[in-house]
Amino acid sequence: MSLKIAIQGIESSFHDLAVQQLFPNQNVELLPCSSFDNVAGSLSDFSADLGVIAIENTIAGSILPNYNLIDSKNLKILDETFLTIEMYLMALQGETIHSIDEVHSHPVALQQCKEYLQRLQPHCKVIEGKDTASEAKRIKENGLKGVAAIAGKQVAEKYGLQILDKNIQTIKDNKTRFVVIGRETAENASERNKATLKFQLGHEVGSLASVLQLLSTFGINLTKIQSFPIEGSPWQYSFFIDVLYEDQVLFAEVTNVLEKAVKKLKVLGTYKQNLNNAPSQLNRQLVHGK
Amino acid sequence: MSLKIAIQGIESSFHDLAVQQLFPNQNVELLPCSSFDNVAGSLSDFSADLGVIAIENTIAGSILPNYNLIDSKNLKILDETFLTIEMYLMALQGETIHSIDEVHSHPVALQQCKEYLQRLQPHCKVIEGKDTASEAKRIKENGLKGVAAIAGKQVAEKYGLQILDKNIQTIKDNKTRFVVIGRETAENASERNKATLKFQLGHEVGSLASVLQLLSTFGINLTKIQSFPIEGSPWQYSFFIDVLYEDQVLFAEVTNVLEKAVKKLKVLGTYKQNLNNAPSQLNRQLVHGK
Repeated sequence: MSLKIAIQGIESSFHDLAVQQLFPNQNVELLPCSSFDNVAGSLSDFSADLGVIAIENTIAGSILPNYNLIDSKNLKILDETFLTIEMYLMALQGETIHSIDEVHSHPVALQQCKEYLQRLQPHCKVIEGKDTASEAKRIKENGLKGVAAIAGKQVAEKYGLQILDKNIQTIKDNKTRFVVIGRETAENASERNKATLKFQLGHEVGSLASVLQLLSTFGINLTKIQSFPIEGSPWQYSFFIDVLYEDQVLFAEVTNVLEKAVKKLKVLGTYKQNLNNAPSQLNRQLVHGK
Repeated sequence: MSLKIAIQGIESSFHDLAVQQLFPNQNVELLPCSSFDNVAGSLSDFSADLGVIAIENTIAGSILPNYNLIDSKNLKILDETFLTIEMYLMALQGETIHSIDEVHSHPVALQQCKEYLQRLQPHCKVIEGKDTASEAKRIKENGLKGVAAIAGKQVAEKYGLQILDKNIQTIKDNKTRFVVIGRETAENASERNKATLKFQLGHEVGSLASVLQLLSTFGINLTKIQSFPIEGSPWQYSFFIDVLYEDQVLFAEVTNVLEKAVKKLKVLGTYKQNLNNAPSQLNRQLVHGK
């Protein structure tokens, strides 16, 4: 049986690439969703086994709404992978950069190519669309002349579009981190060395310093932190942090202690750090706890 | 002479409201810009005295590109203010919620009203536009039937549009923090008690804890922190932090010491904390250093 994975966007989108990088040798059935909310929904109603969502990128930093989604839907981060995002300008065969008067793509893709697009304007209109791959598909299916899409190379190949320009994103080393989300599983528990935590603190001087000091005393290493104010609670902050640890037992003990020092500690997931983008070890049997 | 203030968007947009809240009794000339980049550009080429930009909101958290803009253009944060953002659905006179088949607004405004819009779909198309006020203006000027905009109440009043629904944003206590940016000024230096700093750290265990401990030892209080990875430097992180302090001399001394403990410390601005949204004390003479 196949592993059903929900993504935002359609086949050949960057989310699909992340799935292929994570599950290269598995029988995967992609469940395309129109929003991150629907990805989470498909996990809650068991129509998907796993979801893959972008969680931070070079331009925007953390994608806070996706952290909040994982938190509010009580999902877990089970794995991670990183994609280098290279943007291509593509259109129907026979078009050139000079015959284009509209460029369509996802708002984030447009933002990532802002400097390039500024050089094309004003003769060229920039229009925000659904997602990178869908805009390209629409150009092909409707034979839209004078219209280009910005998407990954694989999208041009998939839909037989002509590449007009490559690597057009402003930041050349443009990376996005994707996480696999789902219901908790006991799979690969022994290999886990990274965790995403959420907790709340008042603004007492030094409270965050004390928390980080506690972690550092036990060799638990911060790789990411973001604070944000709590709605309706002035001077109270929530934090999302990512940490690396070596000793699982020690990490569990420190987490127990930490729970007494902060408010509403929640482990949003423990997983294996995956800087070299190795295939995921998650598979259908284990995800289902069989 | 008037104070020339650059904003993203047009008159009666939320950025304009922030300007009115900051400069209620001053002769202000608004310079509408099509992007945050152009706001920064108008300061660099001296066509504006000050700029007002959104820097964080309840939905997205920090607006990282705007922090990067302040940093890369060597601008300073000079003041801050907070707006409670309430979204209204508006259209031509005579329309009802049932006669609407398209809703236009800025992508962030659409995101803030996501749950409301889900109830209107699928019969109603949601279309991303330039900014909240511009979409409303376009409906009025072109007499667009069946089209609604999402914007602030003041926009409906300004363009004589009918309000179809009010307070439609998902998070009812929806706040955005705006900062005044410009070239450094000596104005009100004695009243400043808040600073925005940027610095870099390696991932040595405890390095961030030590920095925060140093600040807390001297009563310097963290109100916001965000880390992000540095392009091309694995394991190196940049941090944007906001801090509150009481003693200016002590703060300057601690900053001097901090410079030796971190890499590339940069003070992006010192200003007066403004939780009660008092009018800004900045004015033309002082901004120009006369």
